[in-house]
Amino acid sequence: MAVVVDTTNSPYAVHRGLPVDAVVLDDPVLAPRVRINRATTLPGQFKHLEETGRLNNFRRVAGLFDGPFEGIYFNDSDVYKWLEAVSWALAAEDDPDLAEMADAVITLIEGAQHADGYVNTYFSMERAGERWSNLRDLHELYCAGHLIQAAVAHHRATGSTRLLDVATCFADLIGDTFGPASEGKREESDGHEEIELALIELFRATGEDKYLETAQFFIDVRGQGRVSGRDYHQDATPLRQQDAMVGHAVRAVYLNAGAADLVAETGDVSLRDALDRMWTTMTTRRMHVSGGIGARWEGEAFGGDYELPNARAYTETCAAIGSIMWSWRMLLLSDADDTRYADLIEWTLYNAVLPGFSLDGASYFYQNPLADDGAHRRQPWFGCACCPPNVARLLASLPGFLATVTSARAGESDSTHDTVWLHLFAEGKATIQLPGGGVVTLRQTTRYPWDGAVEITVESVEDAGAFTLNVRIPAWAEGATGNATGDVNGDALPRGETAPGQYAAISRVWQPGDTVRLTLPMEPRRLVAHPAVEEDTGRVALARGPLLYCVEGADNAANVPDLILPDDAAITADERPDLLGGAVVLTADASMASPEPAWSGRLYRPLTEVEPSNAQPVQLTAIPYHLWANRDSAPMRVWLRRG
Amino acid sequence: MAVVVDTTNSPYAVHRGLPVDAVVLDDPVLAPRVRINRATTLPGQFKHLEETGRLNNFRRVAGLFDGPFEGIYFNDSDVYKWLEAVSWALAAEDDPDLAEMADAVITLIEGAQHADGYVNTYFSMERAGERWSNLRDLHELYCAGHLIQAAVAHHRATGSTRLLDVATCFADLIGDTFGPASEGKREESDGHEEIELALIELFRATGEDKYLETAQFFIDVRGQGRVSGRDYHQDATPLRQQDAMVGHAVRAVYLNAGAADLVAETGDVSLRDALDRMWTTMTTRRMHVSGGIGARWEGEAFGGDYELPNARAYTETCAAIGSIMWSWRMLLLSDADDTRYADLIEWTLYNAVLPGFSLDGASYFYQNPLADDGAHRRQPWFGCACCPPNVARLLASLPGFLATVTSARAGESDSTHDTVWLHLFAEGKATIQLPGGGVVTLRQTTRYPWDGAVEITVESVEDAGAFTLNVRIPAWAEGATGNATGDVNGDALPRGETAPGQYAAISRVWQPGDTVRLTLPMEPRRLVAHPAVEEDTGRVALARGPLLYCVEGADNAANVPDLILPDDAAITADERPDLLGGAVVLTADASMASPEPAWSGRLYRPLTEVEPSNAQPVQLTAIPYHLWANRDSAPMRVWLRRG
Repeated sequence: MAVVVDTTNSPYAVHRGLPVDAVVLDDPVLAPRVRINRATTLPGQFKHLEETGRLNNFRRVAGLFDGPFEGIYFNDSDVYKWLEAVSWALAAEDDPDLAEMADAVITLIEGAQHADGYVNTYFSMERAGERWSNLRDLHELYCAGHLIQAAVAHHRATGSTRLLDVATCFADLIGDTFGPASEGKREESDGHEEIELALIELFRATGEDKYLETAQFFIDVRGQGRVSGRDYHQDATPLRQQDAMVGHAVRAVYLNAGAADLVAETGDVSLRDALDRMWTTMTTRRMHVSGGIGARWEGEAFGGDYELPNARAYTETCAAIGSIMWSWRMLLLSDADDTRYADLIEWTLYNAVLPGFSLDGASYFYQNPLADDGAHRRQPWFGCACCPPNVARLLASLPGFLATVTSARAGESDSTHDTVWLHLFAEGKATIQLPGGGVVTLRQTTRYPWDGAVEITVESVEDAGAFTLNVRIPAWAEGATGNATGDVNGDALPRGETAPGQYAAISRVWQPGDTVRLTLPMEPRRLVAHPAVEEDTGRVALARGPLLYCVEGADNAANVPDLILPDDAAITADERPDLLGGAVVLTADASMASPEPAWSGRLYRPLTEVEPSNAQPVQLTAIPYHLWANRDSAPMRVWLRRG
Repeated sequence: MAVVVDTTNSPYAVHRGLPVDAVVLDDPVLAPRVRINRATTLPGQFKHLEETGRLNNFRRVAGLFDGPFEGIYFNDSDVYKWLEAVSWALAAEDDPDLAEMADAVITLIEGAQHADGYVNTYFSMERAGERWSNLRDLHELYCAGHLIQAAVAHHRATGSTRLLDVATCFADLIGDTFGPASEGKREESDGHEEIELALIELFRATGEDKYLETAQFFIDVRGQGRVSGRDYHQDATPLRQQDAMVGHAVRAVYLNAGAADLVAETGDVSLRDALDRMWTTMTTRRMHVSGGIGARWEGEAFGGDYELPNARAYTETCAAIGSIMWSWRMLLLSDADDTRYADLIEWTLYNAVLPGFSLDGASYFYQNPLADDGAHRRQPWFGCACCPPNVARLLASLPGFLATVTSARAGESDSTHDTVWLHLFAEGKATIQLPGGGVVTLRQTTRYPWDGAVEITVESVEDAGAFTLNVRIPAWAEGATGNATGDVNGDALPRGETAPGQYAAISRVWQPGDTVRLTLPMEPRRLVAHPAVEEDTGRVALARGPLLYCVEGADNAANVPDLILPDDAAITADERPDLLGGAVVLTADASMASPEPAWSGRLYRPLTEVEPSNAQPVQLTAIPYHLWANRDSAPMRVWLRRG
């Protein structure tokens, strides 16, 4: 039962996720990425781990390699994240080669564990005496957290306890070391969050309360100046008093993901309120149109409200992944039937995570700008290689985000009334265990995200009785000229059921062959930003369905930065099977206005001197943003000048 | 003869500056700042130097204080910059209190000098063994450079050789240590440039060729990867091959100032060509409308071409000062009669340096954003306190930037024909020694920059014969609806003589009472940015004369970010003697459009949902940008939305 975030026994969680192997994706966008992740990315990253000395660092501590420590002090974490990714991949499908690699790496980790449980190849050997000496900067508990997450994943995927044993032994040491001063422990935490959510998953995997308690300690101690006192480390304000997302973006969302996990176990109301506030302020003030977060290069950090630059957007791939991790946990907690969390997960997945790696699965973006002049290119690896294995673990676990199940809500009359919540649309199949004991197999037939027609067919039902199928009607559908419509076995759904931003709830005793048909409006949309986003003044972004679009040089005769899209220009969507593995492109009659010659050698000029625009008609072609930078280097823009 | 950059004997310099004491300023904007610098800033900074342990660090090495080193490893440089500032202040006017402070500090520096000439309080005592161990990061030669600059200034101002002796002794050690490997020296340089220009001024002050040779070595060794290999330190590309300004902005302009000094001594053509290219690309692609430079917070660095954010403009005060230092040296080298260097110096002085400190002379900006929501406030001091004493030394030396003199150019018939170049307009008086031996006293009568009428009267002439007065007609005058006009003793100057962007050349045998009257057009101007500056799309900035304007909350009933200035709205200039020490404000009939209620809780919306603008008429009032943030915290914008 390899569930990514396992809330089976979490008293305050509403939803349960599906095991990774319960879902098979076969859609035209996500599935190829998942496949190439398995076939190319994971073996390729293993090679990088080997070639960059990351594995030798473990061999060294295990006494199998004679040489210096290589790389950065947090390099162990890349090994753990890769191992987590491989675990989810193994959960989805047997793969002897990957399993062998994983076992070999686990052997190295076992060999590098100290007798007292400690594992960190940087703080071993000549630096053994420096253990826990610089929690703020040196990511020691962060690395521990990733080890624990990998162990939980490997255990859930394979049933093996080898890595879990390493993790519990280390977690015991951590729990003995850190905690309330009143217990004689160190009342401190790490500069980079990650240990919090990891310990809660370890609690879920083992049932040991002590891991939950330590996780709670690490969340509660934060914001009291015991790390640094700075927003950068989310240490200036206790989480329960915080309203805004601040500081290093990846750290902030990892912390909040862990806090949401804690709410699922404890029901902590003030913590949950803070998470609600922060999720709202993030999504309404501090998020790029791609769903990317972390506006600033300096500190890889959230900016101020509405500070959302385009070319200098930092929007780290890892932060987008962390945003999905947090939103997924918020979804698991939610008893509302609005689609906000699933909407953001889908949007961020397509438009902030997928752009982070190349179609061939072999190179990565760290930053994901929304405008570029051709210089920003994906790299096969980084010295600080956090993003590549983070992408790999999200992709490997992706099937687990398709749907959730809930039991009847408290107060509802029929306590046996289970609900299946369908969050993502994708050609494929899901075998779903209902809380009440039944099993239902659903097939989606759809060309989504290229097409808005989705057919959901019940292939089989066992022991299920009546249950509800909640089908997400994305909030983005409200921006289109049409409306979502649907039917069940040909009987139209009431219009209120298909209103955007909620789940269409269809309750019945389902029979094999029952079919829900949904048609989502796929008219291209022009998005504008809140007037306070000054970088986007006078600009529009294009979207269609769940996809953000951009304009890239390869498809346009015009110089991309000079393009102007008139507000009244019709936008046409066309399928281009030949393009970048197949895509729907948008075209429009636009214009381009090159800077007039008098701008030559001038940066600022009096308005009275500037000639009226010399705009020339030109065709504009936009591609999905997640496909950019897969061809020769060229300018790209998400936000286009309005005409 | 306290000339700030003394090119008297520089074979390839065309201009010579005036001694600081040759000019008295009495204008309404600069003169009050110079006065408050002397009365408040310099004594106040002395107190900060004392209270923050910067002086104790010297006492400690001198054996007069028992305690730890305090502060940052480059803190000595603040003491030196303050001492340089005091020196120029003493050159302008006797001041026993300041002289006494300076002498006391010099005694401390003498006491902290090692027997071999070395001076650096951080790398003394317990860190003496670490000398020159981390040139890249620890600013050792940077501190040395500021010591040398202070010594030269003190010597020129007072005639004393006390600090100069300290400096030459240290410079000898530096010259023995660093240089070509073929001479058995260390072929390296400092991460932060400053030593280059300092050593050339020391060469000028002492006549010792060896200092020029060491300076040339430090310039030539740069860009070969011997510092870091990175653009941040201007070490990725040799200067002579560089086209663009890159990396840390202050470092980049300090380096180029030193390189321009080198050109003045050696005539190096390839170096001069590189400086010309870089000055052009900086001013046409990488400079904010304020003249501020260094777009990025990360690395306090130049951004890419046209990367010029507003709220997140870094535009460090020190970088603007360094820009003036560089442009002044380019002016000294130039035999052209275009005004580009003086134009940029004036614009940067008013609009990028003056905003960097408060009207009361007691607090400072490190960053100078062009848009702010009220959070950015000046501070009385900084841990990294580079800007405050940098402002002080520029202000103290400011009279020296008013004018220059040149001898007749090669090939001109009359080799006795001297020229006085008047670069800045300001009520006051200048006593000018002509290269041919004569002396002329000029008085400017003007309310510039509030008024465009400037009267230049010859008060006295001695031994001068015929000479030329070159009066700058600023390039900004071409943007106004009027034209500059002028006359000499009532005879109108030909129109070609008063064309913007050149110097009006008036040659005659000048007599006491001769008067040049100049009228510069002071109509308010709307400036627009090059279309590639995406942050300024759909916006205008306001200017009048040499002043950039901004809109600040205190003067406006409307919420400043919501203001819209229609392109056809008339702009009125009005004198407000009561406002911030007296200022001309600009007003216009504008409108404001608050975000419509439907934006509440939304960050991006479909264009089809957005209501037409609900703009309401409102009065807009703009103040000179250099006066912002001298009242209660409130939003400020330089770039206004066009209607």
